[in-house]
Amino acid sequence: MATSTAPESKADAEALIPLFHLEKILNQDQSGRRITLLGSISRRPALLILERAAFTSSATSIPPLLQRITSLANLGANDIYRWYMSSLSPAAPPLPNASEPSPESTDLKLNLIYPCTPKHLAKYTRQRLRHVTETPEIYATHLRPWIARQRAAGRLDWIFNILDGRTEQEDVVLRSSWDTDDGFLLLPDLNWDRKTVSALHLLALVQRRDIWSLRDLRKRHVPWLRRLREQVVRGAGAAAGSEGVSEGVQEDELKCYVHYQPTYYHFHVHVVHVMLEAEGGTQNVGKAWELGGLIATLEGMQNDEDGLDGVEVSYVVGEESDLWKGLWGPLKQGETPTLNQAA
Amino acid sequence: MATSTAPESKADAEALIPLFHLEKILNQDQSGRRITLLGSISRRPALLILERAAFTSSATSIPPLLQRITSLANLGANDIYRWYMSSLSPAAPPLPNASEPSPESTDLKLNLIYPCTPKHLAKYTRQRLRHVTETPEIYATHLRPWIARQRAAGRLDWIFNILDGRTEQEDVVLRSSWDTDDGFLLLPDLNWDRKTVSALHLLALVQRRDIWSLRDLRKRHVPWLRRLREQVVRGAGAAAGSEGVSEGVQEDELKCYVHYQPTYYHFHVHVVHVMLEAEGGTQNVGKAWELGGLIATLEGMQNDEDGLDGVEVSYVVGEESDLWKGLWGPLKQGETPTLNQAA
Repeated sequence: MATSTAPESKADAEALIPLFHLEKILNQDQSGRRITLLGSISRRPALLILERAAFTSSATSIPPLLQRITSLANLGANDIYRWYMSSLSPAAPPLPNASEPSPESTDLKLNLIYPCTPKHLAKYTRQRLRHVTETPEIYATHLRPWIARQRAAGRLDWIFNILDGRTEQEDVVLRSSWDTDDGFLLLPDLNWDRKTVSALHLLALVQRRDIWSLRDLRKRHVPWLRRLREQVVRGAGAAAGSEGVSEGVQEDELKCYVHYQPTYYHFHVHVVHVMLEAEGGTQNVGKAWELGGLIATLEGMQNDEDGLDGVEVSYVVGEESDLWKGLWGPLKQGETPTLNQAA
Repeated sequence: MATSTAPESKADAEALIPLFHLEKILNQDQSGRRITLLGSISRRPALLILERAAFTSSATSIPPLLQRITSLANLGANDIYRWYMSSLSPAAPPLPNASEPSPESTDLKLNLIYPCTPKHLAKYTRQRLRHVTETPEIYATHLRPWIARQRAAGRLDWIFNILDGRTEQEDVVLRSSWDTDDGFLLLPDLNWDRKTVSALHLLALVQRRDIWSLRDLRKRHVPWLRRLREQVVRGAGAAAGSEGVSEGVQEDELKCYVHYQPTYYHFHVHVVHVMLEAEGGTQNVGKAWELGGLIATLEGMQNDEDGLDGVEVSYVVGEESDLWKGLWGPLKQGETPTLNQAA
């Protein structure tokens, strides 16, 4: 207690929780797994913060955890992929399976891949990450030819199909300034549920095909980038409305960034709500570059043709990636990179 | 099943889970709240991914959740602050309190602040975030005088006490190049447990006092910044060892970034393990600037005295912050900022 008399015993502290009377939810964060409650205990205000705990990750702790799975409900299945929700029973005493879990007793989400292949194993095994610094020379000698080969091999055809209106047109939420230098379209990112405004995540694919990644941006692109940013933010605000998001989103609630390395080498800008809590470091330094920061870097350069192919760029790569295996791993070992040797 | 015969029923899918035989933990991420298991079902390989579910956040779902708290154990208390762990019982049937939870049945962490004050309320209530663009003019007119007043008012004395060796010396893991232009010291970040190598997070506080934030960096600082980055990364690798971290850390497993706005206006660099999953967007664009990116921006500039006080910097501010209330909020409303009016 605030007035310090006799120290509170553990039993005293534990006896307070059942007395908590809920008034209001103040916040929910950490991907919904922490919730902050305002309430009262004996008519005095109290804050209670509930947080899903991390799993104990020793091999011996897992079988007892699996035995606690109760009220298991299969939500769907597709070939070898199945997903479920369940409750947990206390460690002791063990319980028989109860009825279907209600939404408020969903403690676990489960995914089962069965039978699985070695490819699944490689994908789901924790890989070691490395922080590398790509010099202009390494980019020119290794990365640029590698990207050119990917483009020549048709690896971007699915993007061009979207741009040309052949596929995924039902997903395009906006085409802006089409058939001008400023042309771009907006698509929902796969991770957005298309309704939660505070998790809004759209991709702006530019129509022009001469920018493969941030490496191709030059000082002369600054006016274009400024217009693009302005139009992408305005378009995303409008698109949020057209997607049935009732609350709407204001332009100063959005931020823009690009990835390097990107998943595909056709210039695209991520536009997200500032409240979005991204999983997997997708907005982290070492992966994401804020668009305004790129513009500032370009603006400071001396000549119109100076660009981001002339600077060092540092980023994080996984040891299971083609880039690590074919380039960074060999370079670290003093060996010849093989990135551009394979067919 | 992979061989498509009759479609699998929900009951069939549910019957697979109890048959899962654990072989190996492949990964644990999302702050430990997702765990990926390799095992077998009927001697065929299977991947099972367990994930703590988000809370249902409707007001009606919370009281039933609170009633499911069982095996509550108080872990500690300090004045009005208490922390606990507990298990959850299934929604039905209700259970009497069982024994102390074992580590593998810790489902929830709880924090209770009781009695709490309006200040706690403001701190824990979800605040709206805004993305703002600070021009060189806004920095010079409003931010710089505001920072100068903070420094003059002694708000940085605690930092100078650490630098001068008066406080927190037991936490200093390294002093490097002391009493030269390159002097810096390394401290563990408060969020690091000081033993998990993949979550390593240190702060490098520079000894020089003329750099308040990234805004003070100029092209002529590039050689100093390059040396600083090199020494900080080398020092952090060594410090990880001296902190009793057995596995060690290699230099290409570390990345460096700075915050803008920072928590305090004395230049400091965050150095983190690339595997660290940061909570609260602390590595996100709009808050964090990768040190290499800053160096690249400075290098591209024309004159030695050109610097980051001459570019636009965009970042995220909360509406409860002094900066929003005193500067960005008024600017948005077309009113006169009050940031530098208060005493």
